[in-house]
Amino acid sequence: MIDINTIEQLLEEWMPHEDEGYGLLSEAMRYSVLGGGKRLRAIMLIESFRLFSGDTELERYTACPFACAIECIHGYSLVHDDLPAMDNDEFRRGSLTTHKRYGHAMGILTGDALLNYSVEIIARAGELLEKNKPDYYVDNIRNFMHATSILYANAGAFGMIGGQVLDVEGFGEGAVPDEDMLSKLCELKTSRLFQAALCCGAILAGADKNDVSLLEDIGCKMGLAFQIRDDILDVTASFEETGKDAGSDEKNNKSTFVSVFGIEKAKEKVKELYSEILDMLGKLPGDKNAFKTIFEKLYSI
Amino acid sequence: MIDINTIEQLLEEWMPHEDEGYGLLSEAMRYSVLGGGKRLRAIMLIESFRLFSGDTELERYTACPFACAIECIHGYSLVHDDLPAMDNDEFRRGSLTTHKRYGHAMGILTGDALLNYSVEIIARAGELLEKNKPDYYVDNIRNFMHATSILYANAGAFGMIGGQVLDVEGFGEGAVPDEDMLSKLCELKTSRLFQAALCCGAILAGADKNDVSLLEDIGCKMGLAFQIRDDILDVTASFEETGKDAGSDEKNNKSTFVSVFGIEKAKEKVKELYSEILDMLGKLPGDKNAFKTIFEKLYSI
Repeated sequence: MIDINTIEQLLEEWMPHEDEGYGLLSEAMRYSVLGGGKRLRAIMLIESFRLFSGDTELERYTACPFACAIECIHGYSLVHDDLPAMDNDEFRRGSLTTHKRYGHAMGILTGDALLNYSVEIIARAGELLEKNKPDYYVDNIRNFMHATSILYANAGAFGMIGGQVLDVEGFGEGAVPDEDMLSKLCELKTSRLFQAALCCGAILAGADKNDVSLLEDIGCKMGLAFQIRDDILDVTASFEETGKDAGSDEKNNKSTFVSVFGIEKAKEKVKELYSEILDMLGKLPGDKNAFKTIFEKLYSI
Repeated sequence: MIDINTIEQLLEEWMPHEDEGYGLLSEAMRYSVLGGGKRLRAIMLIESFRLFSGDTELERYTACPFACAIECIHGYSLVHDDLPAMDNDEFRRGSLTTHKRYGHAMGILTGDALLNYSVEIIARAGELLEKNKPDYYVDNIRNFMHATSILYANAGAFGMIGGQVLDVEGFGEGAVPDEDMLSKLCELKTSRLFQAALCCGAILAGADKNDVSLLEDIGCKMGLAFQIRDDILDVTASFEETGKDAGSDEKNNKSTFVSVFGIEKAKEKVKELYSEILDMLGKLPGDKNAFKTIFEKLYSI
């Protein structure tokens, strides 16, 4: 399995240097993206590529920059999510959130810069592929363009951002969300970027439609399991364990799987999803051990 | 010259419908982008394409979606610029700013959604080109990718957003910006998107490097002239004329070309730039009347 240090090195390679650019922007971008995290989306993207292709050159020019781009997208979404008008969080991963560290306006601009930078990485990777590997370029540019389309469709108004809007606007005054509503919210806010990671990796490796579609389903369930587990940790784990204030969902008066169903039912649901994911994984080609390791780590609660 | 109604129709074609998606997000995206404006960047992009190509099919599949994408980028930058932590503006183009109308969190998310949507438009256009015009696709995908790279490089941390950071952070405590500092700020904040419009149009039409480079210089001077004129209007024009509060720069205690040099010198500078732009324009191929019309309208102060 690709290890987290390799992802950190890739990010080092693609992110701007601290002394480049204007004011503290590059520093704040690095602070927001390089400040730890499990790199789940980047790892999933590259491991999904590897299910369908062993071409390390193609991986280097396509899956690797896409993995960095998706970390930038994830990073920007956290920076904006933490803003005072959103969740108003002071800590993330044990450090000050970006706007607490660099100021409110810089929080907005750093998020914008990261989303924009994700596109810069992808476009630059496309140009490098053309320049350095012209024969690969011709064969793979269609998949490259399709993966770009899938990534931003999942990250945007009809994906992750749509979920954030539902989260902010709620489900109508006084409405207590039921399981379907919470699942829909989670599918958008969390699953969509997991789905993007899995599908982009596969598409870049030339996977066929059926396998991409199966990965989309896996990503959906993974996101759900991940979010339920996150909700459980929010009430049970301490600041030292999660790097953020315990009970911050409760503080923000948010409906979560735990607040609606209680911890026991939430835990059961995670186990159920985990077993469904393993079943689906069995239908895919390639060596799936990396994914099993990821899932085991993630869903051991 | 392509008229503003054609641009509005293109935006209608590419923007999400009001009832699509989640909560009020599509409505807020449309409110932010379809709420008027001169469509300068879209017009410049398409007119720049037309200097080098008369291929209406290629224009439809490349320059037109890029024109919509750049309007989304411009739109998102205004929405975020108006936020309370930034310029804290209540009105734009005579209407409430997006966050005043839809709330603070929605202002942030609408801006994010628009930047993300600009990429969705471009990626979707690339896929449509491949599907509907496979022979064009092979010939033009390199230019398409290069234009994407140029667009987001100019819009991002080392372009427009970098300028917003300089604007927010200032030039060091107590520093009164001189002409060079103000020019740099304006080059980033305003010129870069003009440059992107002109260069992307030309690149998509297959223009050669020298012409693209000349357009880059023209865009730089246009942005400067535009910003100086905007600074002049900010102190001289009323709400009815500009759609925003008069003297808002002064209210925000901002250094502008007018506050630093006075109105007369600012006006002189605009005329000087206008004449330089016309000289450079003369060196380009094609029918330049459309550009002359744009410049005349813009720089008549």
